[in-house]
Amino acid sequence: MLKLYSFGPGANSLKPLLTLYEKGVEWEHQFVDPAKFEQHSDWFKEINPRGQVPALVHDGKVITESTVICEYLEDVFPDANPLRPKDPFMAAQMRVWTKWVDEYFCWCVSTIGWARYVSHIANKMTEEEFENHLKNIPIPEQRTKWRRARDGFPQDMLDEEMRKIGVSVDRLEETLSQQDYLLGDQYTLADVCNFAIANGMDMGYPELVNEEKTPGIMAWLTRIKERPAVQKMFAHTKKEDLGPAKK
Amino acid sequence: MLKLYSFGPGANSLKPLLTLYEKGVEWEHQFVDPAKFEQHSDWFKEINPRGQVPALVHDGKVITESTVICEYLEDVFPDANPLRPKDPFMAAQMRVWTKWVDEYFCWCVSTIGWARYVSHIANKMTEEEFENHLKNIPIPEQRTKWRRARDGFPQDMLDEEMRKIGVSVDRLEETLSQQDYLLGDQYTLADVCNFAIANGMDMGYPELVNEEKTPGIMAWLTRIKERPAVQKMFAHTKKEDLGPAKK
Repeated sequence: MLKLYSFGPGANSLKPLLTLYEKGVEWEHQFVDPAKFEQHSDWFKEINPRGQVPALVHDGKVITESTVICEYLEDVFPDANPLRPKDPFMAAQMRVWTKWVDEYFCWCVSTIGWARYVSHIANKMTEEEFENHLKNIPIPEQRTKWRRARDGFPQDMLDEEMRKIGVSVDRLEETLSQQDYLLGDQYTLADVCNFAIANGMDMGYPELVNEEKTPGIMAWLTRIKERPAVQKMFAHTKKEDLGPAKK
Repeated sequence: MLKLYSFGPGANSLKPLLTLYEKGVEWEHQFVDPAKFEQHSDWFKEINPRGQVPALVHDGKVITESTVICEYLEDVFPDANPLRPKDPFMAAQMRVWTKWVDEYFCWCVSTIGWARYVSHIANKMTEEEFENHLKNIPIPEQRTKWRRARDGFPQDMLDEEMRKIGVSVDRLEETLSQQDYLLGDQYTLADVCNFAIANGMDMGYPELVNEEKTPGIMAWLTRIKERPAVQKMFAHTKKEDLGPAKK
């Protein structure tokens, strides 16, 4: 039995969701609702004690960490629409890209996302509700992030993250202005993991990602969104409702 | 031709160094001297434009990022003393550990290491030498780190990194008090990559890592240091001289 627990098709949850749709193997999806803090619920922490999605359960074994799950799916289903190059040098280039997403690109986009979307969830709670909510979060850094979402992120932190988003966009455009996918002709986990973060940036960061400034990224986003697996994923996967963005 | 460019046998440089010694394949080593800032020299930036070690050159192709290099060596030499489990679930557990080193453990230890060791290199330079040095560093975050090494890291940052080192030590001890290696009986890249950061912590952090508080970590360090590949690595690899620690 193969079952993925995740939020809707965005950010880290999108990575294994899309990988599973691309592979076309048999699997089940269990939506974990962030608007109800289900990732910090007791039932979910029995699956992942860190209280973080996504988590994959395969024949009773739990695999965590989105990028690790994607590589696991390649290891277990190597012949189902391979998304990891067979050539070791190209696999290494793929891992440089997925590692960069995990260590750099996802964090800056995440902080701004939290400031825009999670902040008003955090502000809707009473002081008591909020403190009770924090008690259920196992990771100290996540508790700090929730406090900042409620109290406001320091402006110099937001400025620095916006700078990093700019660097990230430049890095993607530099490659994608020259080739269809991040590794060249081949669509791989490098694209899946970057698409997870970059999708929607033309809406969220229209001043940075647009037809004029980043035609390479725009064409790459369109190319990926035209894939049958991507369309199926967006059509079939429940999406959380976090309310409007805070300006 | 297989050639590794790295600092001496510590931190990120140790990971591919030890992997190569464990595999016993034919390779060459080129020591890059951090005391002479060789990682930011033009000749090295022709190999890795990011100015970071380690870098592996294999038949003219350059592979960067220490953990990516280790996985690459597994992909290219799968039968030479395998350090990545064949079982996909165990390989995923290995990757959770190596990812944790790259995203958490190495950073807190690195910041304290910079405050202790790199700071007096940064302080030995004249203002002009220092500014010229910064110009050669391609990564903005690295330039910030050098500025902090010279001006002093903020105390709240040092406190937070020390807290994270405590969390890291607890996490390692929790596992190593129960088993010989991080994945159980099998010595893998999980151990190699964690050893790269943990080796010497009984000297650098004797209040945290010692026979009484962390017998599991201490036994694991000894177990690894008794390996012939590890002894060979330390005996044959040039080590940088960064001078005494700043207290």
